[in-house]
Amino acid sequence: MRAATQRDRGSAERPVDPGRFLTREADPEEPAAGRGAVDFPVAVVLPAGGSGERTGLSTPKQFCTFLTRPLISYTIQAFERVPWIERIVVVVAKESHSLMTDIVEKFNHAKVKIVHGGSTRHRSIFCGLQAFAETDESLLHKPKVVIIHDAVRPFVEEDFLHKITMAAKEQGASGAMRPLVSTVIATTSEGYLDHSLERAKYRASEMPQGFLYDIIYQAYQRCSESDFEFGTECLHLALHYCGTNAKLIEGPPTLWKVTYKRDLAAAEAVVKETLSQTACVMTEECAESLDLSHKLLKKLSAEDMLVDVIPNPKGVKGVSLTSNRNFIHISVNSSKLAQIAEMVMVLEETNHALLYPVVIVWVLLTVSEQSALSQRCEAASAIMDLARASEQKNILLYGVQINHSKVPEQWERSVTKLSQLAAALIRDRNPILTGQILQA
Amino acid sequence: MRAATQRDRGSAERPVDPGRFLTREADPEEPAAGRGAVDFPVAVVLPAGGSGERTGLSTPKQFCTFLTRPLISYTIQAFERVPWIERIVVVVAKESHSLMTDIVEKFNHAKVKIVHGGSTRHRSIFCGLQAFAETDESLLHKPKVVIIHDAVRPFVEEDFLHKITMAAKEQGASGAMRPLVSTVIATTSEGYLDHSLERAKYRASEMPQGFLYDIIYQAYQRCSESDFEFGTECLHLALHYCGTNAKLIEGPPTLWKVTYKRDLAAAEAVVKETLSQTACVMTEECAESLDLSHKLLKKLSAEDMLVDVIPNPKGVKGVSLTSNRNFIHISVNSSKLAQIAEMVMVLEETNHALLYPVVIVWVLLTVSEQSALSQRCEAASAIMDLARASEQKNILLYGVQINHSKVPEQWERSVTKLSQLAAALIRDRNPILTGQILQA
Repeated sequence: MRAATQRDRGSAERPVDPGRFLTREADPEEPAAGRGAVDFPVAVVLPAGGSGERTGLSTPKQFCTFLTRPLISYTIQAFERVPWIERIVVVVAKESHSLMTDIVEKFNHAKVKIVHGGSTRHRSIFCGLQAFAETDESLLHKPKVVIIHDAVRPFVEEDFLHKITMAAKEQGASGAMRPLVSTVIATTSEGYLDHSLERAKYRASEMPQGFLYDIIYQAYQRCSESDFEFGTECLHLALHYCGTNAKLIEGPPTLWKVTYKRDLAAAEAVVKETLSQTACVMTEECAESLDLSHKLLKKLSAEDMLVDVIPNPKGVKGVSLTSNRNFIHISVNSSKLAQIAEMVMVLEETNHALLYPVVIVWVLLTVSEQSALSQRCEAASAIMDLARASEQKNILLYGVQINHSKVPEQWERSVTKLSQLAAALIRDRNPILTGQILQA
Repeated sequence: MRAATQRDRGSAERPVDPGRFLTREADPEEPAAGRGAVDFPVAVVLPAGGSGERTGLSTPKQFCTFLTRPLISYTIQAFERVPWIERIVVVVAKESHSLMTDIVEKFNHAKVKIVHGGSTRHRSIFCGLQAFAETDESLLHKPKVVIIHDAVRPFVEEDFLHKITMAAKEQGASGAMRPLVSTVIATTSEGYLDHSLERAKYRASEMPQGFLYDIIYQAYQRCSESDFEFGTECLHLALHYCGTNAKLIEGPPTLWKVTYKRDLAAAEAVVKETLSQTACVMTEECAESLDLSHKLLKKLSAEDMLVDVIPNPKGVKGVSLTSNRNFIHISVNSSKLAQIAEMVMVLEETNHALLYPVVIVWVLLTVSEQSALSQRCEAASAIMDLARASEQKNILLYGVQINHSKVPEQWERSVTKLSQLAAALIRDRNPILTGQILQA
């Protein structure tokens, strides 16, 4: 059973859709229709030495964490899931080396090599490029094309990386551009308006940018101290020192850069929204539970969630748990916490919650008012320990009790409340509330 | 008792601090040290006719709601709290008229006049300016200075408005500027890089802008159809048609514009953070309750919250409820829900939750394990109805039960959990969770 909603969920026009950035699975080897295969070596340089002054936080923003993972890991993951990208050189300040090593180990970032950077952005990028030029002891193959990106733009997608890469191979250099959001003005030395630029004629230069490795490496070898110190634009270096006019490609708004603390909240909201688009309802085959699951399906679908209902899960072995990140498990009495424990075990074994937290909403459906209270008590003591242990593995377990009222209006109200609670728990992914039993 | 934290909480350098935008109270009549009084009429024109395509939402973004209030109401409020601003002309599309009227009525926006706009931004601004020029039936005085702002920049502060206003009065025109976040590039007609601008020489032009009314009105009367159709920059019109070079003033990052759906999440996060900076703990004078409130004070302060503890609230009459938005009320048995009901009543009467939701965390402290369960049951049935009624008034009531364990380690763990739960409830302000009793 599957219910899709009417509204369009992933069109290219929808600017905030983070698209497929959450899938870890490799894309098919065959290129998509109308685009050429990447049959040459491609690597990435990710300068991440910034101090993040503008976030208003003491931690550099690339190391700020949301949903238990630092921002830079999201960005790395955006590249790691692309099969034709071989290597990701992350350039960090010396003092961040051990922090970065921990991140790479904890989140299994297999394609990453960490390199120490310089005092400015351009120096750091050059350090990253040199990692491929070192002979002898270097294990890094020189790539044909190198992509330069920012550690704080986590939502870059494969399609766009493909465009940048192909254009770089053909033209020598390529870069993302976006329309200007504000009018650009020139000021007099006294701080008055001199003139404003005609917005239509200019663009904002964004990341990622792509280069033939030989071109950008040569540009950096030739460039001046002043470029290293004050320059900001790699495309400019390729033009100035190698005569390469970059091909500019309009990028999606998802290329946006996490600059301020508020942007971290925005990034978290984007990830949470994407993680909350689907859910799997697991139900026993008794009438009340089936009725409840169908009502849930309907209500959650109306809220734009794609819901599967799986009746009678005889153990969880038959269910592909790794195709979902949100589970609503209905038990008609509290003894079934064993199944939840089994689910948690399978999720742990498959490492399914390594990159994104998984939510399990355990619904305790009580069919008699008399036993409701004692069942709730049993449940409350049982769920807390399991929830605490699961949370260590990034699996967030919540409980909701619902009484099956014989009064239709009351039952309907309770189901609505349950649906709202489940949707909120899934959307918020709040670790503080794990182990609680809420009342629908 | 009051505990401030070590960390700096509101320095001008902290870019995300929304400052005093949440205070409704008028500033003292006397101008702050070193700045002149605004002793001439000032009005605001707020074009709000945009369709909000870029948010990816069906509702124009100025009407999108967070924390039960539409974005435009936050922006209006940012001006209404400034005593020297007399009038706010909000320019909306005809089809949004009744929606806007409802917003103005619901949130008591006493300074607002609604005007119908034109088909472009410039036409709408002109419509707004004309509202002051109409004779006879017009009740609006012509202002000396008019401030033009965007409906989707809710965090503008009085200090900056003062600067813009004074500069406009002296120079005829003034505008906010910000450093460019991206390099600006010019492209060839074939889509290649032509050249990049030297970032240091240019700025982004932002809102608000200020003008002598006569100058900007004249500029709009003189400007061409092409300006009306394609123009974006009021400063340009003042320069081109009246020869007025605007004074440009560097603005804070809080001037940022809500453009995409993710920005709504960011705006909500900024407001939530500001609302969560203080809390008031109300306690009975028994030993366990006092002990708990002191521990809470310590733990919440360590999380950067400014906490007041008020012992023995004999009724809530003695407490100034309107000086806070977050209350943690400790009851040693469940019968004290009467005090919560009284608080809710006072908060309703004073209309304290009109603009921002107020949070009450009701802590049920049970001192004997035996009676804990029955007290919880009583509490659960009592709190749900009150919570439902309060929520209608924007007062969010949550319950947390905590058992006073005689085992110090267990007690410490429970207090830590209570503190985390209270902080999360206050920060998240989730209406779905009202009426629940959580377990610390």
